[in-house]
Amino acid sequence: VPFQKIINDPVHGFITIDDDLILQIINHPYFQRLRRIKQMAMAHLVYPGAVHTRFQHSLGAYHLMCLSLNELQHKGFDISPNEAQGAKIAILLHDIGHGPYSHALERTLVNVNHEAISKLIMYQLNKIFKGALDTAINIFEGHTTKLFLHQLVSSQLDTDRMDYLARDSFFTGVSEGVIGYDRIIKMLTISNNQLAIEDKGIRSVEKFIIARKLMYDQVYFHKTVVSSEQLLVKVLERAKFIVAKGQQVFATPTLQYFLMHNFSLQDFEKDENCMQNFINLDDDDVMSAIKIWTTHSDAILSDLSKRILNRNLFKIKFSYTNDFDEIENAISAKYSLNESTKGYYLIKDNFEVAIYNATSEKIIIAFKDGTSMELSDIPNTLIEHLALTPIKKYYLCYPN
Amino acid sequence: VPFQKIINDPVHGFITIDDDLILQIINHPYFQRLRRIKQMAMAHLVYPGAVHTRFQHSLGAYHLMCLSLNELQHKGFDISPNEAQGAKIAILLHDIGHGPYSHALERTLVNVNHEAISKLIMYQLNKIFKGALDTAINIFEGHTTKLFLHQLVSSQLDTDRMDYLARDSFFTGVSEGVIGYDRIIKMLTISNNQLAIEDKGIRSVEKFIIARKLMYDQVYFHKTVVSSEQLLVKVLERAKFIVAKGQQVFATPTLQYFLMHNFSLQDFEKDENCMQNFINLDDDDVMSAIKIWTTHSDAILSDLSKRILNRNLFKIKFSYTNDFDEIENAISAKYSLNESTKGYYLIKDNFEVAIYNATSEKIIIAFKDGTSMELSDIPNTLIEHLALTPIKKYYLCYPN
Amino acid sequence: VPFQKIINDPVHGFITIDDDLILQIINHPYFQRLRRIKQMAMAHLVYPGAVHTRFQHSLGAYHLMCLSLNELQHKGFDISPNEAQGAKIAILLHDIGHGPYSHALERTLVNVNHEAISKLIMYQLNKIFKGALDTAINIFEGHTTKLFLHQLVSSQLDTDRMDYLARDSFFTGVSEGVIGYDRIIKMLTISNNQLAIEDKGIRSVEKFIIARKLMYDQVYFHKTVVSSEQLLVKVLERAKFIVAKGQQVFATPTLQYFLMHNFSLQDFEKDENCMQNFINLDDDDVMSAIKIWTTHSDAILSDLSKRILNRNLFKIKFSYTNDFDEIENAISAKYSLNESTKGYYLIKDNFEVAIYNATSEKIIIAFKDGTSMELSDIPNTLIEHLALTPIKKYYLCYPN
Amino acid sequence: VPFQKIINDPVHGFITIDDDLILQIINHPYFQRLRRIKQMAMAHLVYPGAVHTRFQHSLGAYHLMCLSLNELQHKGFDISPNEAQGAKIAILLHDIGHGPYSHALERTLVNVNHEAISKLIMYQLNKIFKGALDTAINIFEGHTTKLFLHQLVSSQLDTDRMDYLARDSFFTGVSEGVIGYDRIIKMLTISNNQLAIEDKGIRSVEKFIIARKLMYDQVYFHKTVVSSEQLLVKVLERAKFIVAKGQQVFATPTLQYFLMHNFSLQDFEKDENCMQNFINLDDDDVMSAIKIWTTHSDAILSDLSKRILNRNLFKIKFSYTNDFDEIENAISAKYSLNESTKGYYLIKDNFEVAIYNATSEKIIIAFKDGTSMELSDIPNTLIEHLALTPIKKYYLCYPN
Repeated sequence: VPFQKIINDPVHGFITIDDDLILQIINHPYFQRLRRIKQMAMAHLVYPGAVHTRFQHSLGAYHLMCLSLNELQHKGFDISPNEAQGAKIAILLHDIGHGPYSHALERTLVNVNHEAISKLIMYQLNKIFKGALDTAINIFEGHTTKLFLHQLVSSQLDTDRMDYLARDSFFTGVSEGVIGYDRIIKMLTISNNQLAIEDKGIRSVEKFIIARKLMYDQVYFHKTVVSSEQLLVKVLERAKFIVAKGQQVFATPTLQYFLMHNFSLQDFEKDENCMQNFINLDDDDVMSAIKIWTTHSDAILSDLSKRILNRNLFKIKFSYTNDFDEIENAISAKYSLNESTKGYYLIKDNFEVAIYNATSEKIIIAFKDGTSMELSDIPNTLIEHLALTPIKKYYLCYPN
Repeated sequence: VPFQKIINDPVHGFITIDDDLILQIINHPYFQRLRRIKQMAMAHLVYPGAVHTRFQHSLGAYHLMCLSLNELQHKGFDISPNEAQGAKIAILLHDIGHGPYSHALERTLVNVNHEAISKLIMYQLNKIFKGALDTAINIFEGHTTKLFLHQLVSSQLDTDRMDYLARDSFFTGVSEGVIGYDRIIKMLTISNNQLAIEDKGIRSVEKFIIARKLMYDQVYFHKTVVSSEQLLVKVLERAKFIVAKGQQVFATPTLQYFLMHNFSLQDFEKDENCMQNFINLDDDDVMSAIKIWTTHSDAILSDLSKRILNRNLFKIKFSYTNDFDEIENAISAKYSLNESTKGYYLIKDNFEVAIYNATSEKIIIAFKDGTSMELSDIPNTLIEHLALTPIKKYYLCYPN
Repeated sequence: VPFQKIINDPVHGFITIDDDLILQIINHPYFQRLRRIKQMAMAHLVYPGAVHTRFQHSLGAYHLMCLSLNELQHKGFDISPNEAQGAKIAILLHDIGHGPYSHALERTLVNVNHEAISKLIMYQLNKIFKGALDTAINIFEGHTTKLFLHQLVSSQLDTDRMDYLARDSFFTGVSEGVIGYDRIIKMLTISNNQLAIEDKGIRSVEKFIIARKLMYDQVYFHKTVVSSEQLLVKVLERAKFIVAKGQQVFATPTLQYFLMHNFSLQDFEKDENCMQNFINLDDDDVMSAIKIWTTHSDAILSDLSKRILNRNLFKIKFSYTNDFDEIENAISAKYSLNESTKGYYLIKDNFEVAIYNATSEKIIIAFKDGTSMELSDIPNTLIEHLALTPIKKYYLCYPN
Repeated sequence: VPFQKIINDPVHGFITIDDDLILQIINHPYFQRLRRIKQMAMAHLVYPGAVHTRFQHSLGAYHLMCLSLNELQHKGFDISPNEAQGAKIAILLHDIGHGPYSHALERTLVNVNHEAISKLIMYQLNKIFKGALDTAINIFEGHTTKLFLHQLVSSQLDTDRMDYLARDSFFTGVSEGVIGYDRIIKMLTISNNQLAIEDKGIRSVEKFIIARKLMYDQVYFHKTVVSSEQLLVKVLERAKFIVAKGQQVFATPTLQYFLMHNFSLQDFEKDENCMQNFINLDDDDVMSAIKIWTTHSDAILSDLSKRILNRNLFKIKFSYTNDFDEIENAISAKYSLNESTKGYYLIKDNFEVAIYNATSEKIIIAFKDGTSMELSDIPNTLIEHLALTPIKKYYLCYPN
């Protein structure tokens, strides 16, 4: 009987690992670390169920990759065992470079984009596994003649997105994000070397796009979620500020290391210490420190920390313009804010949501007669009827 | 312990009947007849699971009505026990006038709109129950100062629609139609005496509208579903034609009655026989006859009947114009069709789908500050981005 | 791209047909007939959702067979393409010989066991398909050296049982019958040429057995279900009695044929007419006739028919003994029953339920060290703790 | 419009909070702390989805309490608003005294039973809320004439158990534990002042008991789960041992506090510091420390810590006897264990599982005629056929 390990997943059922290299990667401490990094950062303050981890998500995306590759092979497309293994490893490791509470903290605590770090970690693992990850890395970076393999890892229809929408919807309990990924996978095909969807699958793809839009509205850009993540950023900023002044804050050694320095991608590439510390960093470092900071002598640090810990969050106002002068003035007066405190108590930022991007990363629909079209060019689709210009929203977070 | 009857429903879980009058109505043969009328006519030829009945749907809509009324009462809106009972009975009976395979057959076999018949049956039941349905009938017909009660029975957000989308999606297995009706119901409110949705529920309503659109695309106007229902119409037309010529076709007495006559609403109102026969008519009459017609001496009747019975359906072509001349000529030639046979073998018709109708039956969103807006007026909704002109499609059904 | 047809199934998701012979069998009128035969006979009078058909069940069992064969092949067991196709066809056709409302009617209307008829129909199809069903028939009948293939079609762990428990539970909404068939399939293995379960799957198998027991208690032997099926038997008995007296009852020609004769298996084997009529017989024949019998001049026939049609069923009393004298006397007196009417109004029968049969059709558990044990021999299983003697219950149905 | 807050729960859907006091309790830091305590300790090392928290579980049990009280009130049983509020608060706070990784750590780190601490915290909250929790505390402690209210909080059918079985099953993805709690709640009644189940609900209760048994077999006493929790106990024991020797280990101040002392219930009652520190202690303290201990100079502490962090767990052997001499000797030799190291590398313990306890905490079935019976006394139930003596298992954990 060949080797086979089964993992129970509440979203997809059974996830099968039947490749020894893949099992070794999963068992490696670098991958096990993802158990300690929540997928949705602070969203559980709004949706208490959303405490699932990047570990689960990575396994789930791997599972959908297995299903997708099976489907394409079954339809007669040529994918070698080595390519299949490569694509599976690529998706398994696509989030390996995420630090704690990214995306919230990748600009504050770590300063380096998580995808760049993912690549560095893959290179390290490739050394450890003596080149066995060559194909995976090529697929991840798009250096492959079979573009569709890369697109299964990263595109508008990749297995990353399919898993996170399904998973985030499952754990938040927000049914608006439920997608029929099984049908999408059944409809996968290849057209001109690119990933495409059979025309019978148009409705499922439309639903997928709409579900993603609704998840942004209802979950990812939920007011309280945005507000709590901004608060987290400010707590870390303040701690860094205090450390920069030469004062002490409690922190695990690893967190201390990142509070004391500002690193660049070069540092990660060259300084083994830097990478090693990153590998040790997870949600627990951040949260155990914040709890202790609630009693720090710095009034701002302790106030912000208490707000996070006990869920006493900032209010947030959304707007189509960047003009919040009225509230800013009122709050400044009420709390006697000055230049050095305003930055912590009046947080302005913005985000953009596109429903579907028809230029970059298009979705291709393949018809039975061999022709193909970009989704939004097809008449009578929902997408055709939608104004596709992304919507930009400004917001201000402030104490109540 | 007060009276309580529980019915297991695979879609909603337990449906509770705790009102003796409502139980008596459910037990009445008029309502029990709905057990023998499939909700989705011939759609089970494409989606084998879709054999659920109008009986189930009516109970399901009743259940959602109970939940909706509870929610509104809990929010402090005044609904008397009599009004609540009326609304429950109104939704329970909203489909009581459906004959077999309507909507397919209401223009061929019965000729009278099912809603008109529903009202007549409600009047009859009201006599039987000595006026106990007065309030129900007023709510059904919109004669109430509490317009929202009528809207729960019939509007873009009525409990009829909520149930059939949830139910049809469940039994077809088409996840694109899954809706979060529990959230919609939680968000129900009343604004200016009209049914409205709290602003927190916008995304759920949007998903509801999109789900409905996708169900039309994928199920209700699925090519094979449309084609099989057109075939059914033609079989019955042919049988009526043969009977009109004075020849015999096998039929149960009740079906015979409707094959021999063309009735008007007046007939239903005046002729007790007419109504009594209608009450006896269900899917079994139609299907048991068609099976026997497969061996009828009339070549057209037997051919069409065999096609239905053994699922050897017509092809169907959709188009944005009404021009199918090329295929029509080819098929006419191939099968030597003439004026008297064309009507059965070249079936042309059209349908219209609107995503959302912002003028008739608008959906009202109620904000916390007491103001309200029509859904498509709200910025950054999906609906706002959609071109809302209904889409009209023409189609031709023909033998392969 | 190879041939592939997908069917939506609400229970299992997508069912894939990728074999042309199997598609032809599904499209054959003999198989399409199963669309018109409800899986659970009259159970929908208690569980309104339970109107699913033998067509769905047969496809579902076929799907689970595909999954099971894949699993075993993946584990390295040798199953040739021809054997796989044979097993799939065998399970697809395992219920092909069911008439309407069997098991209720196979002793009254048809008189021949449905399994015997299934075999005859398979032989006919094998002629039509020129011997292509040879392997399927051998597997169905157990004439194979690979016993496990037959066991996948018929044993305590066959894919028939897995599908009907999952399906009946889904459509009734009775969660007590939900089983983890995906885990059971993942745990399938072969031990000494017999189907077995890996030891990690013991709990899933136990749950499966318990779920089946609970479904018998709650659904298959639900009082009202038993009572309604006995009433159906009596209606048909009475109609046959009237026909035997030389009087007329309304019936489709096919039903008429079976009301007029009592057939044996030999008749089915020799008389083509007999089989041809059987092939035409379905639920619609029975129900359309009963509706008309509600106005028959025979008081018993019309009374029993009305009871079925309008769900005015007999009461039923269960007992561990066969002694119902008291009620029988009371009812006989109340309704002035005599020898010729008692049989219709006092219906006595019994049934037996075994939780698990450890002698016939044992379930084998395979351990990692290569040994195997029968399930109830394993210490600390639920089954070990259960007294496994089947329970026999007697019952009496009677008017209220 | 009255006050109403809705929380999305992936298990139960929407949870409604419509009582201001209850909302204040939920918002209190003592309750918010439960967000940082995983419900299933280390079980996520086997079932990656099982990272749900005691916060979610407490809200879920509260929700089932609301449904149960509604059901009983609807059936005409007298429950005053004050009693209903009390029962809701009692269940909300039933787990408030859980520390991190209890049950694993309540004997090592905290030394005091979590239920005793729960009571102390309730008393504190009662002071804070000026006596508003009097009724809740009485119900929690069983000081009420309406015993059934206490039983809804704590008994074989309490809403605690209903929620954790449903929730743990949902998040592990182990379908064997799925229960029909909605049906159980619909069947709740009161008999002689005690909580009981209507006879129609017997099968649901049986399924509930069996599901619980299967969850113990498959999840709670899963080998790897038991082994990982024993490892955790040993890590903390070692850390305490090092601290007791006067050496340093990294820890947050709060964790340090518990590593340095051994407290009794009296300490918790009298020493405000003790309780205050407990209130600050959660999973993050434990996990952030263990990560740092992986580089501690004490070889045992660092080895055990690494094993936890990177999921390199001990093997475990189950047995019906307490005799593991053979393995113990082999492992002792292999790793040169001595008296001071054996305790960390050869971990022996045992557990007991009872399927159903018919003497303490019986389940009462109420019949329509007013009589009632204890579940296992009822003929032909599964329970009646089960040998109900609890099963005791011994186990040994050891390095591979």
